[in-house]
Amino acid sequence: MRPSGRQPNQLRDVRITRHYTRHAEGSVLIEMGGTKVICTASVEESVPPFLKGKGEGWVTAEYGMLPRSTHSRMKREAASGKQSGRTQEIQRLIGRSLRAVVDMKALGERQISIDCDVIQADGGTRCASITGAFVALQDAIASLMAAGKLSSNPIRQHVAAVSVGIYQGVPVLDLDYLEDSDCDTDMNVVMTAAGGFVELQGTAEGAPFSREEMNALVNLADAGIAQLIDAQKAALAG
Amino acid sequence: MRPSGRQPNQLRDVRITRHYTRHAEGSVLIEMGGTKVICTASVEESVPPFLKGKGEGWVTAEYGMLPRSTHSRMKREAASGKQSGRTQEIQRLIGRSLRAVVDMKALGERQISIDCDVIQADGGTRCASITGAFVALQDAIASLMAAGKLSSNPIRQHVAAVSVGIYQGVPVLDLDYLEDSDCDTDMNVVMTAAGGFVELQGTAEGAPFSREEMNALVNLADAGIAQLIDAQKAALAG
Amino acid sequence: MRPSGRQPNQLRDVRITRHYTRHAEGSVLIEMGGTKVICTASVEESVPPFLKGKGEGWVTAEYGMLPRSTHSRMKREAASGKQSGRTQEIQRLIGRSLRAVVDMKALGERQISIDCDVIQADGGTRCASITGAFVALQDAIASLMAAGKLSSNPIRQHVAAVSVGIYQGVPVLDLDYLEDSDCDTDMNVVMTAAGGFVELQGTAEGAPFSREEMNALVNLADAGIAQLIDAQKAALAG
Amino acid sequence: MRPSGRQPNQLRDVRITRHYTRHAEGSVLIEMGGTKVICTASVEESVPPFLKGKGEGWVTAEYGMLPRSTHSRMKREAASGKQSGRTQEIQRLIGRSLRAVVDMKALGERQISIDCDVIQADGGTRCASITGAFVALQDAIASLMAAGKLSSNPIRQHVAAVSVGIYQGVPVLDLDYLEDSDCDTDMNVVMTAAGGFVELQGTAEGAPFSREEMNALVNLADAGIAQLIDAQKAALAG
Amino acid sequence: MRPSGRQPNQLRDVRITRHYTRHAEGSVLIEMGGTKVICTASVEESVPPFLKGKGEGWVTAEYGMLPRSTHSRMKREAASGKQSGRTQEIQRLIGRSLRAVVDMKALGERQISIDCDVIQADGGTRCASITGAFVALQDAIASLMAAGKLSSNPIRQHVAAVSVGIYQGVPVLDLDYLEDSDCDTDMNVVMTAAGGFVELQGTAEGAPFSREEMNALVNLADAGIAQLIDAQKAALAG
Amino acid sequence: MRPSGRQPNQLRDVRITRHYTRHAEGSVLIEMGGTKVICTASVEESVPPFLKGKGEGWVTAEYGMLPRSTHSRMKREAASGKQSGRTQEIQRLIGRSLRAVVDMKALGERQISIDCDVIQADGGTRCASITGAFVALQDAIASLMAAGKLSSNPIRQHVAAVSVGIYQGVPVLDLDYLEDSDCDTDMNVVMTAAGGFVELQGTAEGAPFSREEMNALVNLADAGIAQLIDAQKAALAG
Repeated sequence: MRPSGRQPNQLRDVRITRHYTRHAEGSVLIEMGGTKVICTASVEESVPPFLKGKGEGWVTAEYGMLPRSTHSRMKREAASGKQSGRTQEIQRLIGRSLRAVVDMKALGERQISIDCDVIQADGGTRCASITGAFVALQDAIASLMAAGKLSSNPIRQHVAAVSVGIYQGVPVLDLDYLEDSDCDTDMNVVMTAAGGFVELQGTAEGAPFSREEMNALVNLADAGIAQLIDAQKAALAG
Repeated sequence: MRPSGRQPNQLRDVRITRHYTRHAEGSVLIEMGGTKVICTASVEESVPPFLKGKGEGWVTAEYGMLPRSTHSRMKREAASGKQSGRTQEIQRLIGRSLRAVVDMKALGERQISIDCDVIQADGGTRCASITGAFVALQDAIASLMAAGKLSSNPIRQHVAAVSVGIYQGVPVLDLDYLEDSDCDTDMNVVMTAAGGFVELQGTAEGAPFSREEMNALVNLADAGIAQLIDAQKAALAG
Repeated sequence: MRPSGRQPNQLRDVRITRHYTRHAEGSVLIEMGGTKVICTASVEESVPPFLKGKGEGWVTAEYGMLPRSTHSRMKREAASGKQSGRTQEIQRLIGRSLRAVVDMKALGERQISIDCDVIQADGGTRCASITGAFVALQDAIASLMAAGKLSSNPIRQHVAAVSVGIYQGVPVLDLDYLEDSDCDTDMNVVMTAAGGFVELQGTAEGAPFSREEMNALVNLADAGIAQLIDAQKAALAG
Repeated sequence: MRPSGRQPNQLRDVRITRHYTRHAEGSVLIEMGGTKVICTASVEESVPPFLKGKGEGWVTAEYGMLPRSTHSRMKREAASGKQSGRTQEIQRLIGRSLRAVVDMKALGERQISIDCDVIQADGGTRCASITGAFVALQDAIASLMAAGKLSSNPIRQHVAAVSVGIYQGVPVLDLDYLEDSDCDTDMNVVMTAAGGFVELQGTAEGAPFSREEMNALVNLADAGIAQLIDAQKAALAG
Repeated sequence: MRPSGRQPNQLRDVRITRHYTRHAEGSVLIEMGGTKVICTASVEESVPPFLKGKGEGWVTAEYGMLPRSTHSRMKREAASGKQSGRTQEIQRLIGRSLRAVVDMKALGERQISIDCDVIQADGGTRCASITGAFVALQDAIASLMAAGKLSSNPIRQHVAAVSVGIYQGVPVLDLDYLEDSDCDTDMNVVMTAAGGFVELQGTAEGAPFSREEMNALVNLADAGIAQLIDAQKAALAG
Repeated sequence: MRPSGRQPNQLRDVRITRHYTRHAEGSVLIEMGGTKVICTASVEESVPPFLKGKGEGWVTAEYGMLPRSTHSRMKREAASGKQSGRTQEIQRLIGRSLRAVVDMKALGERQISIDCDVIQADGGTRCASITGAFVALQDAIASLMAAGKLSSNPIRQHVAAVSVGIYQGVPVLDLDYLEDSDCDTDMNVVMTAAGGFVELQGTAEGAPFSREEMNALVNLADAGIAQLIDAQKAALAG
């Protein structure tokens, strides 16, 4: 039934490559099937003005797509002079998701800037960004600990994200582009290793969705995120 | 327990004033307690380029806050030269919510532009905007029908929105500013008269939220939205 | 002769509602017939960089129109990314007009920011903004005095504004939209209670205007402003 | 009494050099004492969208200052990415002033773009721009007539501008920078050869100005503009 | 002598990976040592306005760096709202270099948009972009020929680019970041397979350079470009 | 052969007028035939943030063209809200060229801002800007020395610039607009009095250029720059 031949509850192949580029304290390429995102985490020994002198850190995120990461070429946001509403919405989501699992006092007065840049898009780029960025963040924290700048890890637990949706009447896990552009309901779920929700964003693209559908989607997401967190752990152990 | 003394499942006083300003085809002042939003619906006999010649209509929305609608003065977005990410996120949400209940083919090749401008803010401005804008949209449609430009109403059903959240450990309905700035979880729910979900956006501000909490919040929202739709109906009947 | 049936020297009905919104130190809704403007005055305990350390205060103003305050919807300036030349001209005029009656040394090193937002337009919005903003400014000053931050009132005298013009060959007071869009000469006059001119801006829309016409217009404005200052005083006494 | 030693009713030396640069259909350097402005008039065989197909022409204007035309260097507006409110106010004034003396139907469906660029500033740049731009406009019209594109001159009469003000209690004509930055009232007057007012913009910089002062200033301006129109005529005859 | 231990006339290892991403008609990863650039070529069946109806095609280019492609994080240009002068200079250079070897009439009325995005920077990104983009362009052309839209190849000959410079008094080929940030003269050379110069841009970073130095640098570049064109040919044959 | 009748190795008439405008520490009008550029040098007793506290100075440059300096009117960059890539490229070139001959430590912690504004364009504006700006810079330095703020001249030697190109197969010096818009190769050369290269930027507009052509062009430039430096010296001695 699914264009890719996957089972409704089946994730795409996940690959997480650490140390993908050289300069960032954390640098990860995450691939969810045909979706590929470079996630870097950059440590900066200063915080935004609203946090100056409060003894707390900050995690922020930016998101972008290469112009031809998509089927037809998109305008380059740097050239058009502003980021789209969609871009801003996504980077705000990534930032909130990661901040939810970091103890800002333990991080200390420094900022970690996450950059998620999509080099190839096949649906689910915002969720892949969160899942990959967590690993980059973990590596950046490890570099601070290795350098003696942090004595304990301010990350409380793993966080990952996945999309779920109703495609041709069936709840499915991890929508690819073909499914995403033709589904009735699209939901992005961000959860922790302990099974708590960090973000839950469901949108009815066609008909409104029911309470039963909501529950089925959340069940799928719950199981999918457990697998994604396993993939994160495997990568970090690698 | 609530700063306002309300019960956990109690909405603020809702007032919906139609024909609030003179020029727009639909013009509504919605008040949810101390939150006051002017919602106008403007009919334009053309559609955006991507819809030209397709025989379908469009509903779009913009959102703004007067600089001193808030406790301390915010910068005027027109002066700073761009809309914030929050503004863009909200206006995209309003547009999607209203489009979900409109039959675009029945609307025909015209656009209805919704403007939601907050003149006084006390929490829940995005939800109030959706609830009020629906009434303005209905009035604009009525003006098209009265003018003989539409023979049947392209609106399929009512839509309204409310925020819910976990405040001091208790799930509560319709957060005001004091609750909103001090809650653990904040969820905006957009539902139709038939009880379907159009949008569901939950965010853990502090600790992640559980499945049980999610269900309690959705229950509260469900009941609250039924009351808001009653208020819409009463206003439209008035 | 006038579309509204008014006498040439007759103002529209003036209504000034204080405490219109909750958060601003001064908040006024001024209505001049069908023109409605929300004017707020916000106290900020700092001054722009060019005044730092000089022991003087500042009064500044911004102006905006809700997109559907007008007959056909205008583009939202925040969305188009810049304020029009007209907007800038008007907000500069409002700021100058109010500064003319404030003793900046007596105000002390703080700034009062005026925001004038037109919610319904029917001509004369810039003049209504000045007349209404003066009352909001007065209320903001009163709040500073009540809080013991000022011992005496730095406002020297009342200031108000009105438009006059030559409509179908006749000098008339307080143009509404129909007159404004079809007049030969349009003049905005800002005067103090003592009858001094703060601003005088006359523009020949059609044929140039003569010295006699100028004098007739100024006479009309003079009388109109006296009435507007009475309305301000009545509102402040209310 | 005046820093320059001039009489109260004395203009600065006026020099108008036609054909100052090579490419524009009209190109004038106007010097009013130390103020020097290049005014060009460019003919474009098209009109702005709002005039398409109406058989009428348009005259528009832009204004700029070289960064070091002033005592201390100003930021280049092209580099800072926007024109100041002052710049926009001035270019709108120049455009209105010239349009007031042109018969747009007689001009036909074409636009004349005026550019006024200040290369040295010593007060009165907006007035010098109007006076100089009129000559450039006349030359551009002459080029259209010489090319057989216009059979009669759409310019109805001369227009020129001058500033007047109250300096140390005395009404004076044609303020230079020293006077302008230290005067009580500043008024810019735009008049036609027939003595009609096109624009009258008076601002009280310090104390409000009285009716008597207004009259004295207008008298000075009236006499000054007659001399400026003589200078325009002499240049055009040259 | 060189930080990398290379000989003065030795290129870094060059790797050109075709079909690097999925959607673009041409997609190449070029690696010059530690410098890695994704170059895509996108075919668009339309041309910019200035070429409409002329029967000629166009090749244009945009360039960007991921924020953490560099040692310390750069601001994202899409977020800061404009492209730097450096970025614009580089993308103009890439576009001119490729246009120099394409017969625009033979390409027909279509545009090929090149995007060069640096994912890891170690000096020489603009030259690597040109060398890699040529291969992506060749693949895009091949797709047009395979689709029967072009019957012959409009590319006249290969083009590639390399930097040369004077490092510690010695002319060296293909500067890496350490050399680039500490050299006296930096020259970027773009040449064709036939040995003609397309672009030659030399800059004295410290002392001016002499005619002899210029000649030595050009000799090095000439030999290096021959090797780069061999690498392009090998990749295209692969 | 040349449209102007000049010999291949013949410069246009050069005129350098110092003290062209009143306010800048250095102010020069340079005319190269029909190309006229106002170059000012403004002394500011502060440096950009990246140089604060390092005891070094800075020289920076901005470039602009009056809208009607060209054959057809260009859009005003201040109005369109950004500087073109060409403008940025040119102002970066001017800045680098002048910095190459200034001892920044000797200049001390102050900045000299160069503004080059083209009032009439006939080809070669960037080179004329550099040649003229050097004289303005020299005058600004002289003013600092006269004021006792500098005891010795931080300028190491003269610098000037000229364009050369291949026009109808023949290498020619100092291209005017007609040649520039119809040449095969265009090269801008910036050299010092001692004959060292500061910048060398050659571009093949049509066919690539050969080593022999490059050498012929550089020879022409070398001789031309010697004459330009003589003109600078004569102006400074005048």
